[in-house]
Amino acid sequence: MIDETRPRGVLAPVVTPFDETLAPDAGRLVEHCRWLLANDVGLAVFGTNSEANSLATGEKLELLEGLVDAGIDPARMMPGTGCCAITDSVALTKRAVELGCAGVLMLPPFYYKDVSDEGLYRNFAEIIDRVGDNALRIYLYHIPPVSRVPISLELIERLLTDFPGTIAGVKDSSGDWDNTRAMIERFGPRGFDVFAGSETFLLDTLRAGGVGCISATANVNPGPIARLAATWRQGDADDQQAALDVIRRIFSRYVMIPTLKAAIARYGSDPGWERVRPPLVELAAEEREALFAALDDAGFDMPGLS
Amino acid sequence: MIDETRPRGVLAPVVTPFDETLAPDAGRLVEHCRWLLANDVGLAVFGTNSEANSLATGEKLELLEGLVDAGIDPARMMPGTGCCAITDSVALTKRAVELGCAGVLMLPPFYYKDVSDEGLYRNFAEIIDRVGDNALRIYLYHIPPVSRVPISLELIERLLTDFPGTIAGVKDSSGDWDNTRAMIERFGPRGFDVFAGSETFLLDTLRAGGVGCISATANVNPGPIARLAATWRQGDADDQQAALDVIRRIFSRYVMIPTLKAAIARYGSDPGWERVRPPLVELAAEEREALFAALDDAGFDMPGLS
Repeated sequence: MIDETRPRGVLAPVVTPFDETLAPDAGRLVEHCRWLLANDVGLAVFGTNSEANSLATGEKLELLEGLVDAGIDPARMMPGTGCCAITDSVALTKRAVELGCAGVLMLPPFYYKDVSDEGLYRNFAEIIDRVGDNALRIYLYHIPPVSRVPISLELIERLLTDFPGTIAGVKDSSGDWDNTRAMIERFGPRGFDVFAGSETFLLDTLRAGGVGCISATANVNPGPIARLAATWRQGDADDQQAALDVIRRIFSRYVMIPTLKAAIARYGSDPGWERVRPPLVELAAEEREALFAALDDAGFDMPGLS
Repeated sequence: MIDETRPRGVLAPVVTPFDETLAPDAGRLVEHCRWLLANDVGLAVFGTNSEANSLATGEKLELLEGLVDAGIDPARMMPGTGCCAITDSVALTKRAVELGCAGVLMLPPFYYKDVSDEGLYRNFAEIIDRVGDNALRIYLYHIPPVSRVPISLELIERLLTDFPGTIAGVKDSSGDWDNTRAMIERFGPRGFDVFAGSETFLLDTLRAGGVGCISATANVNPGPIARLAATWRQGDADDQQAALDVIRRIFSRYVMIPTLKAAIARYGSDPGWERVRPPLVELAAEEREALFAALDDAGFDMPGLS
């Protein structure tokens, strides 16, 4: 039995625009969220590709409230709320639940390395306890290439056993299909929803019993990715996947976040979108030109982006 | 010519005590700082071993102000102020300078990996610009085993050239003596003060022209480490170093932070000191017993700890 209130399909780790002072730009963010929703893509704001970890907790709280105030449906939102400090994770998670967000995407605390599963278990258990709300739905965020703090199958087993319903799923950004499949096979039957970390694995994930993907490139190619998630049982699914892969490869040539922002700046005719916070850097002029040429060759567009 | 206002010798990344609710315990922290100062050890509060990255920015600001209010001399303090979000780094650094801290120990933003030197340069340059105070002294914090974001010699070269005086030195916790020596040889003559990341390299660092060490175990063995820093030109320096190494090795057997806290709890007769925030975990009973037995065998003590 499928819980209809649970997020499924495609979500974007929504890129965060900045103004001339490098402050978060709520107006541009609202516009981009509306465009994504119009393309059937949900909002994993404050993900890795949102530069979430370049934002202070107060900045994130303000943006989240601004989105809801602007009328963005919290039932379509899965904000990232996992921080290094448990007090930050609790503050963000609590507010997300109060605002009615469908779920939260939770990084493990990622500064200390080689920490034990027991320590990670205590982190999540303590957050669940302090938030103290049955409406909380946690999607664990496994992204070892960036966090360097993996979430093991054993840890998921223990959390799912102790907090069924609250531990709702995972985003697997390991890039390791064997791991994604193992998560689906082992925990899927217990109501644990597995999202692939990229549309590269979307069709495989759906066929194996996963529920969708949360992907950086859903920021720029939302319509076609959402279409595959909606029609993956049709005969053209493999062709759709192959077409998505072509675009994904182009966006993967340079550093992802400035590449996504360069595309939004170009197709939305808004150069201000290119800004990133340090330690990231905008694309160099020659990278941008090569990117745009490749996108033109591929017939890429971002229809409806204003 | 030596600038007498610059920190030299030995500093401890002061371990942070927590109360029963896992909130930072300012009272216990003040006491521990007083004991360290009485042992000629300076205060690198909010270092890696302080669980700084398990504290929210607001918690750090409150602790820092509490220390100064309690009469701890800011001229003996080098708080860690480098965060993932530049807005957090600026807030902490600004307050540290206003309070009169001798310097700040600055991690690079550590979530995104494989970032460019240009991006890291912009992070530090932007912080310096926003703080906008000539009294700012930045000690770069190179700790690739934990941060996984190294600070290269080329980056230091560029920062030191553009911000002489403000870029005051480094803590090298790479554990790679060749790197520490290269930093001393290349940048020492330009007024760049190199601290080793552990007393293991204290004598080598001082002989090569570095200024001291900032070491986890200075929390528990401050007197003997500070004595070597003060008397390293004497004939018994190698014997002193060997004695320090024996103690360091014992403290390195288990996870460092809970090990330090277990020792403070024992020698200060205050079990509350053992608490750590997730994702860290207290020592297991058998680890604690083995630790204490080894320390007893070595004749270790923490004289004056109350």
